[in-house]
Parts: sequence; C-alpha cells; structure tokens
Amino acid sequence: MRVVVPFDATTPKTRLEDTLEPQERAAFAEAMLADVLAALEETGADPEVLSTGPVNTELPVTIDERPLTQAVNAQLAEASPPMAVVMADLALGTPTAFARLLDASGDVVLVPGRGGGTNAFVSRHPDFRVDYHGVSIRDHRETAAAIGASVSEIDSARLSTDIDKRADLPEVLLRGQGRARDWLAERFNITVTDGRVGVERRSMQSDPSE
Amino acid sequence: MRVVVPFDATTPKTRLEDTLEPQERAAFAEAMLADVLAALEETGADPEVLSTGPVNTELPVTIDERPLTQAVNAQLAEASPPMAVVMADLALGTPTAFARLLDASGDVVLVPGRGGGTNAFVSRHPDFRVDYHGVSIRDHRETAAAIGASVSEIDSARLSTDIDKRADLPEVLLRGQGRARDWLAERFNITVTDGRVGVERRSMQSDPSE
Repeated sequence: MRVVVPFDATTPKTRLEDTLEPQERAAFAEAMLADVLAALEETGADPEVLSTGPVNTELPVTIDERPLTQAVNAQLAEASPPMAVVMADLALGTPTAFARLLDASGDVVLVPGRGGGTNAFVSRHPDFRVDYHGVSIRDHRETAAAIGASVSEIDSARLSTDIDKRADLPEVLLRGQGRARDWLAERFNITVTDGRVGVERRSMQSDPSE
Repeated sequence: MRVVVPFDATTPKTRLEDTLEPQERAAFAEAMLADVLAALEETGADPEVLSTGPVNTELPVTIDERPLTQAVNAQLAEASPPMAVVMADLALGTPTAFARLLDASGDVVLVPGRGGGTNAFVSRHPDFRVDYHGVSIRDHRETAAAIGASVSEIDSARLSTDIDKRADLPEVLLRGQGRARDWLAERFNITVTDGRVGVERRSMQSDPSE
C-alpha cells in the first residue's frame, strides 16, 4: 500500500509561533516528520513524502506546492487504491499504533484528530477524496457514506494527538519517544501551574539545582 | 474485578464555569457518569460509584467526602487487588474501549489523560497507590516501577480524553454517543473560527434556518 506523508516545508507549524522561533519550528517539524517516517518504516511500510518544497530525507519525495487538500486529492486520483495518508506531526506515533491503522479493515479507515481534524486515513475506495478545511472528520465520514464506502475509525490517543500548538507540547514530553521528544526536552521543561500542565523554556544558563 | 468510578457530586466540573451554569455543570457531569457506568456495564463489569455526596444511580455508591487521592487510596488499601478506577468524565468511552483497559495484562495498567493526568487504571499489585496532583501519569509510572510492578499503557483517544474544559466539548459533539453528547448537542453547536473548532450556545429562539 502506498503510504503518503504530507509535509509543509514552507511555513511549518505556524500555530507554534507563540513558543518557537521560525528556525525552531522548521527543526521541530522535521524531527516529527523523521519520527513518523521511521515508525511507519518499522511497520514494514515504504512511506513517501508529499512536500511543498525540498525536505531532508532519503525516502521518495514528491513536490507539490498546492494546498494540502488539492495535493492529497491529486495523489488519490492518480494512483489505484489502497493508499494511506498520514500527517507528519503525529509525534506520538509508534509502529504499533501505525500498524493498527494500516491493518484495519474498512473501505475508508479514519483517525480523528483532536479538534475535528483527520490525522490519518486509509482509502481502499477509488472515489474517496479529502477536504481538510473546517471539521474535516465530519466531512470525511459524510464523503465516505455518500460513495457507499464502509467506514471504520481507529481509537488511538497517539494518532489522534497532532502536535500543532503550545498546549500539545506537554504530550510530546510525557508520551513521545523519538527525535521530536528529544529536541523538545533539550529546550523545554514540563510545568504545573494551578494544577494545569504546560511547558516553559529551559534557562540558557546551567542550573545548579538540576 | 472491582471497578470504581470516583465522582465529585459537590462541585463538579468547575473548569467549565466559563461555559456552563452550576446546575448545568451538575447535569452534564451526571450525564457523563451515567454514560461511563453504562459502557462499563456493557463490558460485563459491575461498576460502583465512589462519590463525595449523594448521586442518582441504582448502582452501589460509597460516600467519601475526602479529596480524590485519599478516597481512591482508601479503596485500594481496604480491598484485595485487582481493582480498576475509571474517571467519571470519560464521555467518549465505549464498551470496546473500556474492555481494552479491563482485559489488558500488566500489574498496573495506565490510561494517560491529555495534560498529564491519569484517566483510568487497573491495579493488580497490593502496594499500588495514587497521587492525582500535578503530572500524575509520570508519578504513577514511577510509583509502579518503585514497587516492582510491571506497567502497560492503553492507547485510546476515547479514554485519554477527559472532559473538563471548554476546549474538550467539541470532542463530545464529534465523537460522543450517549447521554452527555445528547445533553450537549441540545444546547451547543460546533463552530469553526479561523480554522479552529469550538462550541457556541444555540439560540434560545427557534431558528428557521435550521
């Protein structure tokens, strides 16, 4: 099965602009991409990248500068099913979690993202197309029903947690295992304020209390 | 196995005070509790409630006015393992998801909550105790290791999504199936603003466009 990982190489992770500098956002996004690709490869899949621009990987890369929805639909239109599409910011993804997606039955297998998105899917139906705008998981359920495709959903916190805003970063520190977790842990600590978990940037000075 | 569901009958869901009136918070909390209990019963379990005060259920209720950590530890101390403890606000929980928890192997089986919490666990070790303050999932992993208990974790978005703040409510509308979802859907709509999903209260007037 083709396993396609879309990647925004142009302006990655803009919703993290309150926390990370532009160069940091690019580095963090690349670390997450590398983790996702490595975990997919460990399942036995041969993932490829669908990127808006050049990206640092030895895996196959297709460049498509169009917005995500159009670029993914072009891939769906040009190849025969099945195809999997996995977002590049699933930094908690493990081989076990991705195998649950790739091995699940159903004409269309959806992974809902927190906040109404669609973090990954498998399509085995030639007419399935995506629209990532708005509440895409609801739209994708309706699209699948409209074309007569059977739908199943994967219940995985690891795959439902896409990392795109500050409130997601504690999840990477607490549950991540790869490059993205290490990159973040070098720069940020977990904090607890009024019982709520967050992150704060580590002091640039060495801290003798640590 | 004893399956205990702690419930705050006194001041439930205070973090939803920006969205729901006190009576609404009580009603919504009771709807979530009823959903959790029903889903647990469908797995074949006999859940019981550990409440800070009277609660409307036909299932067994133990009243313990102490804070959550002390009340749960009292239950762990007084009964022989195994015991499961499941939070009452897991409104996305299904029988399938709860069965994954109850059937998993491990001396201690943990369900991390988004934000560092511990949404549910099974303990088969007589010395396991809880501390729900701070980043409890991290503490519970360390506690289990310290007593020599084997640890496993359940990867379920349904069980990792506890519902306690406004940003959690779209998840109930998009993925919930029970009383809590119906209660919320009668009062709130999904909104999309700048690509981000939220909720807004339905108009009290009938809306001819609907």
